[in-house]
Amino acid sequence: MLYFIGLGLSNEKDITVAGLEIVKNASRVYLEAYTSILMIETEKLEEFYGRPVIVADREMVESSADEILAGSDTSDIAFLVVGDPYGATTHTDLLLRARELGIPTRNIHNASIMNAIGACGLQLYNFGQTVSMVFFLDNWKPSSYYDRIKENREIGLHTLVLLDIKVKEQSLENMARGRKIYEPPRYMTVAQCCQQMLETEEERGEKVYTPKSLAVGVSRLGSEDQKIVAGTLEQLAEADLGKPLHSVVLLGKRVHELEIDFIREFAIDKDIFNAAYEAEYGEHST
Amino acid sequence: MLYFIGLGLSNEKDITVAGLEIVKNASRVYLEAYTSILMIETEKLEEFYGRPVIVADREMVESSADEILAGSDTSDIAFLVVGDPYGATTHTDLLLRARELGIPTRNIHNASIMNAIGACGLQLYNFGQTVSMVFFLDNWKPSSYYDRIKENREIGLHTLVLLDIKVKEQSLENMARGRKIYEPPRYMTVAQCCQQMLETEEERGEKVYTPKSLAVGVSRLGSEDQKIVAGTLEQLAEADLGKPLHSVVLLGKRVHELEIDFIREFAIDKDIFNAAYEAEYGEHST
Repeated sequence: MLYFIGLGLSNEKDITVAGLEIVKNASRVYLEAYTSILMIETEKLEEFYGRPVIVADREMVESSADEILAGSDTSDIAFLVVGDPYGATTHTDLLLRARELGIPTRNIHNASIMNAIGACGLQLYNFGQTVSMVFFLDNWKPSSYYDRIKENREIGLHTLVLLDIKVKEQSLENMARGRKIYEPPRYMTVAQCCQQMLETEEERGEKVYTPKSLAVGVSRLGSEDQKIVAGTLEQLAEADLGKPLHSVVLLGKRVHELEIDFIREFAIDKDIFNAAYEAEYGEHST
Repeated sequence: MLYFIGLGLSNEKDITVAGLEIVKNASRVYLEAYTSILMIETEKLEEFYGRPVIVADREMVESSADEILAGSDTSDIAFLVVGDPYGATTHTDLLLRARELGIPTRNIHNASIMNAIGACGLQLYNFGQTVSMVFFLDNWKPSSYYDRIKENREIGLHTLVLLDIKVKEQSLENMARGRKIYEPPRYMTVAQCCQQMLETEEERGEKVYTPKSLAVGVSRLGSEDQKIVAGTLEQLAEADLGKPLHSVVLLGKRVHELEIDFIREFAIDKDIFNAAYEAEYGEHST
């Protein structure tokens, strides 16, 4: 059996009891390590499990699927994924390969940002499609996310924005020379995301949102030192939410008063928050 | 400290290791028992935890919040919620009351249908807003969900439909007489949901979907005997997915070919599935 096991959001104890039992008895344990990160080191996982953990990067999962699957017809293989196994799409290939080979699979689900974001006080029912924000380059500032946000905003819905992470990236020079030397990991911050959002709005000019539109920034959701702040995009573009991972939610106009009451507690500045709410979202706004 | 602890989707072992540690050490353990259900008995939870569990129904959470919170300034209270603590909105009041009293709270997140639905093979990125379907009565067939689906469909997105459960409901007669006698619990099935969806479409006639539109039905997601079937709405209106809980996803037109390849494996009838896909979703459809 091939088990896809979600690790949840934060540390080694966020695995479920069922997931831990499988890990302890599996013949091999892999950790998918390229679409997200836990906030702890792999060594800590190994210590907690009492088992070696094989870190599986993108290259390995793409090129060595059969190696990962070896023996899964007679014993159990555990493939660990941060969050829920279906938060990311990248190991779908592994699942489809297992199907082809007739190897049974099972999912051990867990929390991911897609549902835990409810902790900020905005109702999951009021979210539209989720978008991703990548690091802009001087000559590459993809704005397709803006079209998705526009669709959500037009029907009044919130948008969860997932922020880029860069792990195991090579510099152009090292890539050209075929040197497997990797840059230090980079994680987009709430501030960077909001700056890029404002940059796109300035460029596209379709008034999908303004610097005064309200958003919520979260960091290290689910951990003991999680942080949630609410404010305008221009405020959040200056906010420091500390260590990764960060995420952003842009509010939709259909926001309920109870949601506003809840997130007002996280406001950087309550007066600015209230004024922005009245201007764009309140009953008297147009 | 007041802990909101998600129990996940299926059985006693879906709690996280962190959550279980808190439960074992809390001074009192409550189980929220009116917005969703685990697929096991409370006794099984008590046995697994080695602790008594107080079942908190809606009445209790609404009227006895201070009783639940008593002592949480000096010891830990655990409030268990099926799925993730923020899947439902009903205990927000309890959280706000704790805030008023200055009692610190923390969330232990877990999987909920909102993210675990990704296991059906449809990408979470391609979902619009989630809707709820209630049991229709002869003279009460609310169709506001239809407007929400319409919004999602117009921009090509999938819609997760959450199905009604009735627990601890009184008959009109018992309610009138003030007798606390409750009807047996009822859980909406995939078939009932699809029948109601077709009924609304017939009544409203806005061609938001047709009997040939594709949908996915899931039951007991995350458990060992979970079931996933794909087919047209008229096929699913006849499908039997066994015991609760059930959910439905209506496909949006922006569905990716990889998603289709994935869910085709769950098709009730592959020929009908392919024909429906070509007619409404494929590259050559209008």
